[in-house]
Amino acid sequence: MKFTLEKQDTHSSARAGLLETAHGSIPTPIFMPVGTVGTVKAVHQHELISEIEAKIILGNTYHLYLRPGTQTLEKAGGLHRFMGWPGPILTDSGGFQVFSLAHRRKITEEGAMFASHIDGSKHLFTPEKVMDIQRSIGADIIMAFDECTPYPCDYNYAKKSMELTHRWLARCYTRFKETEPKYGYEQALFPIVQGSTYKDLRVKSAETVAQFGDVGIAIGGLSVGEPAEEMYEMTELVCGILPKDKPRYLMGVGTPANILEAIALGIDMFDCVMPTRNARHGLLFTKEGKINIKNLKWKDDFSPIDAEATNHSSRFHTKAYLRHLFVANEILGMQLATLHNLSFYLWLVTEARQHILKGTFNVWKTEMVTKLDRRL
Amino acid sequence: MKFTLEKQDTHSSARAGLLETAHGSIPTPIFMPVGTVGTVKAVHQHELISEIEAKIILGNTYHLYLRPGTQTLEKAGGLHRFMGWPGPILTDSGGFQVFSLAHRRKITEEGAMFASHIDGSKHLFTPEKVMDIQRSIGADIIMAFDECTPYPCDYNYAKKSMELTHRWLARCYTRFKETEPKYGYEQALFPIVQGSTYKDLRVKSAETVAQFGDVGIAIGGLSVGEPAEEMYEMTELVCGILPKDKPRYLMGVGTPANILEAIALGIDMFDCVMPTRNARHGLLFTKEGKINIKNLKWKDDFSPIDAEATNHSSRFHTKAYLRHLFVANEILGMQLATLHNLSFYLWLVTEARQHILKGTFNVWKTEMVTKLDRRL
Repeated sequence: MKFTLEKQDTHSSARAGLLETAHGSIPTPIFMPVGTVGTVKAVHQHELISEIEAKIILGNTYHLYLRPGTQTLEKAGGLHRFMGWPGPILTDSGGFQVFSLAHRRKITEEGAMFASHIDGSKHLFTPEKVMDIQRSIGADIIMAFDECTPYPCDYNYAKKSMELTHRWLARCYTRFKETEPKYGYEQALFPIVQGSTYKDLRVKSAETVAQFGDVGIAIGGLSVGEPAEEMYEMTELVCGILPKDKPRYLMGVGTPANILEAIALGIDMFDCVMPTRNARHGLLFTKEGKINIKNLKWKDDFSPIDAEATNHSSRFHTKAYLRHLFVANEILGMQLATLHNLSFYLWLVTEARQHILKGTFNVWKTEMVTKLDRRL
Repeated sequence: MKFTLEKQDTHSSARAGLLETAHGSIPTPIFMPVGTVGTVKAVHQHELISEIEAKIILGNTYHLYLRPGTQTLEKAGGLHRFMGWPGPILTDSGGFQVFSLAHRRKITEEGAMFASHIDGSKHLFTPEKVMDIQRSIGADIIMAFDECTPYPCDYNYAKKSMELTHRWLARCYTRFKETEPKYGYEQALFPIVQGSTYKDLRVKSAETVAQFGDVGIAIGGLSVGEPAEEMYEMTELVCGILPKDKPRYLMGVGTPANILEAIALGIDMFDCVMPTRNARHGLLFTKEGKINIKNLKWKDDFSPIDAEATNHSSRFHTKAYLRHLFVANEILGMQLATLHNLSFYLWLVTEARQHILKGTFNVWKTEMVTKLDRRL
């Protein structure tokens, strides 16, 4: 797997690059739609290409391990073939879900014990097991097993947790190097920087993790409830330490404005459930601001959902029709809103990339962020 | 609107025809996907064309009257434009929903009082009002307002109800002729034969109704719980009386086998929620029988959902993947299953039509019905 840094912005730390994988090339900065359990909710696979123009999607190790399970995924020939998605996939390590979704979790040096949120069955995730699971899933990019600390987090807990994450990281790499990809194409392992919102811990973690990331490096434990300013501060600090020739992935971020600010700080890759989850509740993102499509004000608004959208259905259908679908609780409402929001997120990072290449990113970003959070 | 009878089968009463509307031509026999409230649930409008090959869809007057309401539909320029569907639409009269879905209904000579199942608000549907609503919706084919009797139904009630339906029918036609289409294209009004499962009532109703249907005639009050044999008996009886040069629409029918049997009796048009509703519960129809995709037996079955399906996604995705989507309660499961079932229903009537034209319908039908109800 190869990352080429194409352009370094001179007015900010923004970068444009290209990450080449066995399943296709990913222009950066990029947003990765979340396909938790082998489907980007309410989206056909061919729409990921034709409407959303996704370049890479994300799967969740925790969910895929529970359902359909690694046996079925192996028999299918990996997640790409199981779900019928030909492009690149990244899987997270399950760390975040174990600490946010699973029940009765217990962390030891060995790993994390937890009970499934689906049926209460008990499971143990160790760094080695999480590598094995991700070999079975077969994503192009896989993540190290980490503990994702909550916010706020006591300094001593954050320090101990980070140290445990670093020891787990070494075990992840040992197992990763002992094993082979199952489906004949390369997988890259990204380590994860932790350290909560403490500068000295973030510096220590970034320095430690930088030694591991052969292909790319992730920043975890942010966007978990801390103020945006702290997220930006930690991101800037860590990006200043990480090697320039490797892509940086800021996990779980964020709003459109968060993404533009983080791009300005040197982030290359993003994922977040916000565009998909908000879509299912009728909240749309546009370049002029946010729309709650359920509001009465759209009842007889027969203008397109978004006349400037890159995707067909947002130009074809009206706000009045989409509002009606949400008011009547119709599935098509969730389908159309999801296509819209993901298309917008992909437009946003694509546009950011063009501005970085042209040298106009910082001016454009400043103008955009004043509009993105408005309520229309 | 023009109906051309192209072929009368010699071994059965099956017919092939063509119904021409302002929004396109409809080859018959035809199945009409149900788009209750301005959307065929879980289906994009362009998929109705590209995957399902629908020629006409159905809307529900009761639902559309409550949401989005006739004011919004009028401002939009009618249902076609509101929902972005360029092909023909048929709206039912709301009679069935008033008697099956609404609360606290009271029937008088004037019409039916009822409380909305959504918010309890009170409404009065009269024959005149139902004509006005359907003028506002703007479907190509609209239905007379009738009382749909339940099964079983006391003879005296069935007789009185039928007589009321006939008086309402005359009022419907009076109002229909006094009013003009709102959107510049022709609308046709279909009367509805009632009479429960009583032969003399069905004969009387068919004779009465035959005098009204200028373009086509519907048969209502069947597929409401009676044995299939009674449904077929009534259908045969009524088809023997109805004029041969007009399309016959058997409302709310039915299973794939029901549809083939009714085609053999002379029916030209069908609608039913069965393919869409069953799809959302993971029940698939195929030419080899029925599949409950949630069954464990499909867990590791990586064969296509239906290798012979006319629609792309049923050939592209596997049974194992579709099962996984249902087990994980993912929206895409409902989307794929709905596309499958509707494509199958459209394939079924298209194939029936080809066999009628070739003179091989009866042999083919007999062979098909032995397979359609099997559980795979």
